[in-house]
Amino acid sequence: MKVSELGEFGLIELLAQIATKSRGEALLVDIGDDAAAWHAPASIQLATTDALIQDVHFTLSLITWSELGWKALAVNLSDIAAMGGTPKYALVSLGLPPDTEVEDVAQLYQGMAELARRYDVAIAGGDVVTAPLVVLSVAVIGTAESDVLTRSAVAPGDRIAVTGYLGASGAGLVMLKKGLQLDEETTTCLREAHLKPYPRVAEGQVLAQHGVRAAIDLSDGLVSDLAKVCKASNVGARLFCHQIPIHPLVRKSFGDDCLNLALSGGEDYELLFTGSVEVIDRVKGLMSCPLSVIGEIVSEEPGKVRLFDEQGKEIGIERGGWEHFAPGSDDELSKPGY
Amino acid sequence: MKVSELGEFGLIELLAQIATKSRGEALLVDIGDDAAAWHAPASIQLATTDALIQDVHFTLSLITWSELGWKALAVNLSDIAAMGGTPKYALVSLGLPPDTEVEDVAQLYQGMAELARRYDVAIAGGDVVTAPLVVLSVAVIGTAESDVLTRSAVAPGDRIAVTGYLGASGAGLVMLKKGLQLDEETTTCLREAHLKPYPRVAEGQVLAQHGVRAAIDLSDGLVSDLAKVCKASNVGARLFCHQIPIHPLVRKSFGDDCLNLALSGGEDYELLFTGSVEVIDRVKGLMSCPLSVIGEIVSEEPGKVRLFDEQGKEIGIERGGWEHFAPGSDDELSKPGY
Repeated sequence: MKVSELGEFGLIELLAQIATKSRGEALLVDIGDDAAAWHAPASIQLATTDALIQDVHFTLSLITWSELGWKALAVNLSDIAAMGGTPKYALVSLGLPPDTEVEDVAQLYQGMAELARRYDVAIAGGDVVTAPLVVLSVAVIGTAESDVLTRSAVAPGDRIAVTGYLGASGAGLVMLKKGLQLDEETTTCLREAHLKPYPRVAEGQVLAQHGVRAAIDLSDGLVSDLAKVCKASNVGARLFCHQIPIHPLVRKSFGDDCLNLALSGGEDYELLFTGSVEVIDRVKGLMSCPLSVIGEIVSEEPGKVRLFDEQGKEIGIERGGWEHFAPGSDDELSKPGY
Repeated sequence: MKVSELGEFGLIELLAQIATKSRGEALLVDIGDDAAAWHAPASIQLATTDALIQDVHFTLSLITWSELGWKALAVNLSDIAAMGGTPKYALVSLGLPPDTEVEDVAQLYQGMAELARRYDVAIAGGDVVTAPLVVLSVAVIGTAESDVLTRSAVAPGDRIAVTGYLGASGAGLVMLKKGLQLDEETTTCLREAHLKPYPRVAEGQVLAQHGVRAAIDLSDGLVSDLAKVCKASNVGARLFCHQIPIHPLVRKSFGDDCLNLALSGGEDYELLFTGSVEVIDRVKGLMSCPLSVIGEIVSEEPGKVRLFDEQGKEIGIERGGWEHFAPGSDDELSKPGY
C-alpha cells in the first residue's frame, strides 16, 4: 500500500504505534496531539536538530529504510553525546513522496525505534508531509547533569584525543558506492559503521563528569571538525598522523587511502575532545572503548590544523572534510551519505 | 552571493548573528556548538515540529523569504498555543539549493527572528544542508504551567468555540494563486492572514488557566481539525454554520464560497476549544480577541462532524480540509500553501 492510499492520518496512527514502543520516558499526552508534553525536573537542557535529504545524504538503493531511520536518529544522539548529555526525547519531521510504500515508512520508524529503545529515548512526536523526495529532519532534546562539553573550551597545551577507530564510515561509503567486493567481516563492519553508527553517549557523559570541558562529534571529518573546535576556541592544532587510530579493517583493505579516510572520510560519529595530560589519563581508565591521543593544542595560528608524520615532517592536507555548499564538495569521498 | 560561494560554515555564522537578536532566554553555549543548552526550571515541557516544503506548502513566487521564515516558526508556535503553553526555544533545520542567494536566506532568518522577538522565543540552533529544493523544518520547545490542553479531553455536552475569524487564510491563498484584484485593505489583510499568521499564544494560556481542557489549532481546516478532536475524545460534533465567525472581508469578497473557506480553507491558526457553558462564558470575559460558540459536542457518532444551518437543516460537507497524501487533496482550495 502507498502512503497516498493510507492517507496522512492513517499513517500517523501507524507510526505512533511503532514510536510508542520506544518510550523511554512517560509522555503526558498521546502522540498526535498538537505537541508532545512531559514532566521535566530542573536541569540543563540540550536540543539539537539534523536533517537527512535524499540523494544528498543517502541514496535509497544503498541504504535500507530501517537503517535510514536508525541513522537519522543516531546523528542527533551523537550531537547530544558531544555535549556530555543524555538524550531523552526525539521529534521526527518526515517528508515523503505520495507513492512511498507504507511498509517502507514502517521499517524506517522501526529502525529509529530500535535505536531509541537502546538509548532509552522516547519518540515523542513529529510531522508527516508530502514532499517530492524523502526528507528526514529529527530534533532531539536531552539533559546534562552539570557542565556541558563545548567547542569553545579548548586551551593551549591540551592534548587532543578521540574515541574508537576512524575511517570505517568513509570506507563503508566508498565500498557501497563503488560496489567493492570485500571479505564478509569487512563488508559487515564497514556497512554498519556507515549506516548504523552507535553514538558515544555513555562516553560523552564520562568525559563531562571527569574534567573534560571541550568536545565535538566527528561528523564532517577529523580535520574539518577539529578546525571548527580550534576556531571556536581561538587556538591551533597539531595532529600526529601515526597516532591516529585508523580502523584495522580500513588499513587492511584501503592501503594508502586509509589515512585520508580517517582524516576526512567523515561520519565516524566518534568523539574528539581535549584536556590536560592528567585529565586524559583519568578518563582513559574509565572508558570501555579505545581512546587515542592524536595531537596537541597550540596557541599559534588560531583555527589552523597542521599534520605531522612519525618523523615530525609536516604533511599537506588534501581535503579537510565535508562542507555543505562548498565548491568541489561533491566528490565521492567527502560527500556525506552516498 | 550564492550560498555555495559563502559555504556552510560562513552561512551558519551569518544566521547565528541574526538569530541571536531574538534571544528571549539566555543560552549557555554559542549557536554553532553541537547542541543548544540552557538552564530549565522544573516544569511541564512541550515540544513540536512542523516542516514546510517548497511547492507543497509554499511557492517562492508568492511568498517573500521573510514571510516564509515568519510562517515556518508561526505554525509551530501555534501548536504550543494549542497546548496552552509558552514557546521558549526554536531549532531550525534548513535545506537549501546551492544557488540560493545568501541575502534571501538572511531575509528568511530575519522574518523568523522578528516573530521570535515578538513572542520572546530564542532561536537556539539548527542545521543547514544542501537540498534540491527549499525545506524548512522547525522544532519548538516550550513550557506549560499546570494542565495542558489536549485533543482527548472533550466531553459530551461541551460547547465548541473558536477564537478570531475564519476563512481569511484560505481566501488569501485563493487570492494569491488566482491573482485576484481586491481592494487594498482586503488584499493586505488576506495576504497577512495567509503568510504572516499571529499564533494565539496568550489566548491558549488564558484557556488553560481558566478551566478549558481541550483545544486544537486550526491548521488543516475547521471541519477536519474538529473531526480529529472528536476522534481523539471519542465524541461527535454538531456545527451551527450561521454561528461560524466568517471573516468580514471574506464574506464581502468571496460570496457563496465564504462558508466553505471558513469550514475547510485551513491555516487560520485560530484555536478551537471546548468546555461547559460556564467555562466558555468565563474565558469569554478574559479574552482580548473575538470568541464565538459555534457548536456542541454529542456522545453519538464518535469522530463525526455534522453541519446545520440556521433552520436546523443538515448541510452536506463538501470537503473536510487538508490531508497530506489523501487522494484528491491537490485541489486548489484544500492545499496548504500555494
